[in-house]
Amino acid sequence: MDKINRHPERSMLDRTQLDDVLDAAAVGTLATVVDGMPWAVPMLYARVGDRIILHGSTGAGALRQVAAGAPAALCVAMLDGIVVADSLFDTSANYRSAVVRGHLTVLTREESAAALDALSDALIPGRSAEVRGHTGKELAATLTIALPIVAGGWTVKVRNAPPSAPGADEGAWAGVVPLRAVPGTPVPAPWVDPHTPVPESVRRLAQGRSVAGFARA
Amino acid sequence: MDKINRHPERSMLDRTQLDDVLDAAAVGTLATVVDGMPWAVPMLYARVGDRIILHGSTGAGALRQVAAGAPAALCVAMLDGIVVADSLFDTSANYRSAVVRGHLTVLTREESAAALDALSDALIPGRSAEVRGHTGKELAATLTIALPIVAGGWTVKVRNAPPSAPGADEGAWAGVVPLRAVPGTPVPAPWVDPHTPVPESVRRLAQGRSVAGFARA
Repeated sequence: MDKINRHPERSMLDRTQLDDVLDAAAVGTLATVVDGMPWAVPMLYARVGDRIILHGSTGAGALRQVAAGAPAALCVAMLDGIVVADSLFDTSANYRSAVVRGHLTVLTREESAAALDALSDALIPGRSAEVRGHTGKELAATLTIALPIVAGGWTVKVRNAPPSAPGADEGAWAGVVPLRAVPGTPVPAPWVDPHTPVPESVRRLAQGRSVAGFARA
Repeated sequence: MDKINRHPERSMLDRTQLDDVLDAAAVGTLATVVDGMPWAVPMLYARVGDRIILHGSTGAGALRQVAAGAPAALCVAMLDGIVVADSLFDTSANYRSAVVRGHLTVLTREESAAALDALSDALIPGRSAEVRGHTGKELAATLTIALPIVAGGWTVKVRNAPPSAPGADEGAWAGVVPLRAVPGTPVPAPWVDPHTPVPESVRRLAQGRSVAGFARA
């Protein structure tokens, strides 16, 4: 993550690798320019084919401004390990990251319903089939935006390796402390009868078989 | 994370809360404006008092351009749970996030050594005391930059709650799937004798007592 642009071998050109990184995470930082100044917020997202889907409230002024054709960059990063060398200089991190650059578009209400289902299913696979559909009121309250993935409009970088080389102190320990995000036991809301069965999608999510946003070790 | 700006109760004004969020993570997205376009990269960072410390290679052109007094925003986000409601509309996420806005400054070589120690110790607490100091050559190759934390220049948002309210289907399960990042067993580099003792800082990191970047459940 340090010394970015200095390690061309960490940059990848394969679209499949971009998709793998994007699909493994659930939260990214959307950056744009507002009145000449950088503007950045964390957002849930999902890749659907060649588009990244984002959403917010139609009442969110900043997002609406951003959505009006603004140039944007979505940055996604997962920290997969701490790389420990025998010097601080060679201490590093294992990570997967992607930046997608493009111009945002606003989806129509008709497009929104399917895109929002896909966004939910990226977070909780299978969930959209377990619940009722979106109401007109809900769709009217939701701003669904898309960032297209176009050739030349993205960068993906991955580091997954031990420290770069033994340092001067060859007898010293060096290596990697892996990091992994894991789901815990589902916690029912206070009003939920504890005997209520946990939905299949939530059980799968909690078992870590399909958690978006995390290293799938 | 959705409907940002629409939930003022999720915005906090207490600097202590900002520090808590910043200190719990290790990677953020640095966003700025280059030639009128948004520019964003993931970076390791550490808060040291009223400054956020970042670093890169002096050879990294983009970072150097950014560092020259450019307005910047650092965005940090941790996904702490998936909030499951009985409708997709009320599905949400528990998270901690912060955005710090300001102008970057480049540290002198003298300031850099201490700042880089602090950056390492934020990632691997106690590590700087276990290894040799920085060499002049290393300091010359490293661009250390700071983003000041100033009043009015930051936003912190936290959601840590069940779904907002029971939906129409009161018998349906609703709740939260907590997410937590955990360190694994340290993996020695291929050239390291397996009998080499693991440094104290690395053992502590692997035991999860002081892992930066993660929910400390």
